[in-house]
Amino acid sequence: MERLARRLAVARGDEAADVVVRNGRVFSAFTREWLDVDVAIVDGAIAGLGDYTGRETIDAAGRFVVPGFIDAHMHLESVKLLVEEFARLVLPLGTTAVVADPHEIANVLGVDGVHWLLDASAELQLDVFFMAPSCVPASPFESPRRPLTDGDLEALMRRRRVLGLAEMMNFPGVIGGSPAELAKLALDGAAHVDGHAPGVVGKALHAYAATGIGSDHEALTVEEGRERLRAGMWLLIRDASMARNLDDLLPLVHEFGPGRIAFCTDDRDPEDIADRGHVNGIVRDAVAAGISPEDALLMASLHPATWHGLRRHGAIAPGYQADLVILPDLERFVPDLVLKRGAPIADTPRPPIPEWIRQTVRVRRVTADDFRIPWAGGDARAIGLIPDQVVTESLVRTPRVTDGAACADAGLDLAKVAVLERHLTTGRIGLGFVSGSGLRRGALASTVAHDAHNLVVVGMTDQEMAVAVERLSELGGGIVAVAGDDVLAECPLPVAGLLSDAPLDEVIARSRACNEAAASLGWSGTTPFLTLAFLPLSVIPHLKITDRGLVDVDRFELVPLET
Amino acid sequence: MERLARRLAVARGDEAADVVVRNGRVFSAFTREWLDVDVAIVDGAIAGLGDYTGRETIDAAGRFVVPGFIDAHMHLESVKLLVEEFARLVLPLGTTAVVADPHEIANVLGVDGVHWLLDASAELQLDVFFMAPSCVPASPFESPRRPLTDGDLEALMRRRRVLGLAEMMNFPGVIGGSPAELAKLALDGAAHVDGHAPGVVGKALHAYAATGIGSDHEALTVEEGRERLRAGMWLLIRDASMARNLDDLLPLVHEFGPGRIAFCTDDRDPEDIADRGHVNGIVRDAVAAGISPEDALLMASLHPATWHGLRRHGAIAPGYQADLVILPDLERFVPDLVLKRGAPIADTPRPPIPEWIRQTVRVRRVTADDFRIPWAGGDARAIGLIPDQVVTESLVRTPRVTDGAACADAGLDLAKVAVLERHLTTGRIGLGFVSGSGLRRGALASTVAHDAHNLVVVGMTDQEMAVAVERLSELGGGIVAVAGDDVLAECPLPVAGLLSDAPLDEVIARSRACNEAAASLGWSGTTPFLTLAFLPLSVIPHLKITDRGLVDVDRFELVPLET
Repeated sequence: MERLARRLAVARGDEAADVVVRNGRVFSAFTREWLDVDVAIVDGAIAGLGDYTGRETIDAAGRFVVPGFIDAHMHLESVKLLVEEFARLVLPLGTTAVVADPHEIANVLGVDGVHWLLDASAELQLDVFFMAPSCVPASPFESPRRPLTDGDLEALMRRRRVLGLAEMMNFPGVIGGSPAELAKLALDGAAHVDGHAPGVVGKALHAYAATGIGSDHEALTVEEGRERLRAGMWLLIRDASMARNLDDLLPLVHEFGPGRIAFCTDDRDPEDIADRGHVNGIVRDAVAAGISPEDALLMASLHPATWHGLRRHGAIAPGYQADLVILPDLERFVPDLVLKRGAPIADTPRPPIPEWIRQTVRVRRVTADDFRIPWAGGDARAIGLIPDQVVTESLVRTPRVTDGAACADAGLDLAKVAVLERHLTTGRIGLGFVSGSGLRRGALASTVAHDAHNLVVVGMTDQEMAVAVERLSELGGGIVAVAGDDVLAECPLPVAGLLSDAPLDEVIARSRACNEAAASLGWSGTTPFLTLAFLPLSVIPHLKITDRGLVDVDRFELVPLET
Repeated sequence: MERLARRLAVARGDEAADVVVRNGRVFSAFTREWLDVDVAIVDGAIAGLGDYTGRETIDAAGRFVVPGFIDAHMHLESVKLLVEEFARLVLPLGTTAVVADPHEIANVLGVDGVHWLLDASAELQLDVFFMAPSCVPASPFESPRRPLTDGDLEALMRRRRVLGLAEMMNFPGVIGGSPAELAKLALDGAAHVDGHAPGVVGKALHAYAATGIGSDHEALTVEEGRERLRAGMWLLIRDASMARNLDDLLPLVHEFGPGRIAFCTDDRDPEDIADRGHVNGIVRDAVAAGISPEDALLMASLHPATWHGLRRHGAIAPGYQADLVILPDLERFVPDLVLKRGAPIADTPRPPIPEWIRQTVRVRRVTADDFRIPWAGGDARAIGLIPDQVVTESLVRTPRVTDGAACADAGLDLAKVAVLERHLTTGRIGLGFVSGSGLRRGALASTVAHDAHNLVVVGMTDQEMAVAVERLSELGGGIVAVAGDDVLAECPLPVAGLLSDAPLDEVIARSRACNEAAASLGWSGTTPFLTLAFLPLSVIPHLKITDRGLVDVDRFELVPLET
């Protein structure tokens, strides 16, 4: 209350502000105007716009002052960085808040992992909001360490900074009226729910929306996006590292205005952020594609805040949090200066990582024999990779048979894939084939493997697959590229098998080395390890693989390798 | 959950809907389109839009299907009807929800009165939402039965259908940082707060907005409205019986779009609703003034719902409450049919009114002498009436002196005004003059007298003023017009001295008779008793009167009658 009284005194002009941003062109999110006003800041909040004096003055002459960018939906774990390192990466790019769905760490470490991430982000300058992971496991075909219960979710949603229920990925369950899924939607705190409805259209989409699930970030086409808007859902336009939907969906902004549209990154790897920027990069690309800077800014600030009910975020107006980005132009969207709660970006300490977060890869020792697929001959299902997409095709291939076993074959562009349960040392392995990777030799493996984050490995020989798995087991998680008995490149991710404890630059260097090693082994796509990571995600069409076997996502059931 | 499962089955097309609205042009609030789709309704909610079958079919061929209208801010008590009678009046006009600030009854009956109103409206078809009255008393110069405490407010805000804190009328207190006012804004449940900032501009407005108060319905000009939008406040365009701001503010819709603008009626008397309609009348007038039907509809449905966080109201989309208005045209906006939660309008029983609600007028017996103003001569402050506005002017007049007392004088267009405390029988009377009423003889009195609802009387002789007061005392409240010893017309309002227990038609007839009687006595404005009712409202500029005396609202202090 003392703070509020001081804010009012500054607003009235009776007391000097802490900081005044002068001479800039200030974006008024509510009227889409550029105002020539001072911005008076006190105690981290905006007191008033107009003619003010302050103890400190920032000159924004000739520059644009816009609200901090907000990522409407993302997974911290995809960035492979500790959250404070992520903050170091994106704050200078103008991202001042993110809404994270921590379902990756929830799969590995249960509610404990989510609480740890909440605690680890509590004192950061970056505002990290959360949604409670709604689908752990994402489907009955996946094996997280343990399922999250309704009680877990209700407790999580009572924590500060937890805004609601994260993407309801079990869309077939929701649409079909599964009591377990409907029970989640009836939980205390679940008035605000993100959606996830890839390819869902028509009556099925209306059923999904009729539950009150209010957003979707899985639309791929104008038609799908239009349907979602008409159904009352917010359209979160995703520009992820692997799923880039921006260009395809921007026509909707021309058609309907930016009304209920917001930007999100969903899954971005660190090198992609280093290369293309973060939310600011989406704004830049949208403007380059013909969207007005004002509309693009709204979709990157006020609109994500509005969708998530963050009342004091996303605009430059009295009483709003003073998250300001000062831009030299409205083309590149690279900030000259970022003020977070009115202050320049400061460094944050690196808190120690507890042991229980680091010891999460528990696979039995494996040998080449564990990957053998006894085969009498004939057709097999194969996962068809689509470059840089999370969706796959369901193909039929005829594997080469050697010594009574189905084998990978570079000539057929057919590699072997395995998913090994890694939380409870059950020894469960799912085996199958992928087509279209381009891999000619060696093996790639990762403990980042959505959503249960068991261990996924793709390889051309059983022996190399075994080497890759053994190496990840030694590292406590990560990604690795193997040829023969040699590790060509690796990026250790010892934190839950998902995150590095190294600084950004090292993570990017190692991640790039892994990508290059994959390319040297023949992999043809640009994002080999992201592709790997989504092979086990059993809620994205069409054919996927988990430790329990192949999943036909359209039929939503396990299917045998044989056709 | 069973309901939700059924809704999904209908949405999917697996079960028949309860009702399907066919062949209409359906307004899509989120895309501003007119869609040629069926609307499938089950259990009072919309299941889906598309091609559906139902047990019952409503043919809307050639007609427009739009979301029910929502009044963003209003006072039930102004309509002078019991809430069920109000519902009977406005539901057929397409109003399916209102957000009411029950501060009138709170002034008369404390929190008990608010709970009674909440209970009385619980089972109605009309959705009646409430905001907790933030300013009882509206200022220290007013005398309600008792002040509402912070604890009262916190308890109220925990009741279902109470959305937040109602208009913060003590804007000088808020802007000045009064600890008592800031404490209210810090209460649990007070994240959502309506504003009331007449004439407040510049830094004072920014101070007001910086507290988080998020709307204002007191803007009178484009400039004021523009400032409010820029400051991040919702602009509630008011079209009340006495304060008609629609035409003055509509240019803002052209300038900025309807984005954060919604319609409200604030204070409407019943005959005005009978004559001009309710929210549908605002839509009609806005369209007649050149606003597109789509924009006008948004400001009357989705936007009020959005401002108040009523997530399942204000649009025709899956999961939304099935409040539908079927219109034959987009000019008159008179519904052919209103569906409330999917059902036609039904009649409601009239519950008994408890005795404690009916016995609220407690004034000491008065005689002419109580109104005498001893006066040696010289200038006096006089309240200058502005026809059909709630604001007044602060004038100086020289009253005629007779027998050592200042008197009313038709020649000077000067009438006497008194406000008598009526809750606790203290006998406190405030005395003064009004200029510009046109009154030539007789007296008008009312127990509707914002906000404390003490008894206000304006008259040309002390004797007639006494007769009018005595009559209201006998009636237990109401409005009355007196000439000599005769009651020319009266409208009893025995419920808290604010509401009638008679049916609508009788109330309108009596109310009109009172207005005609006032005109016959010389009153020149069209809304004599509304004008009377706002004379004691000490938070509207510029000069007002309460039982404690004259209030200079700009200086926010009591001032003597002598200048």
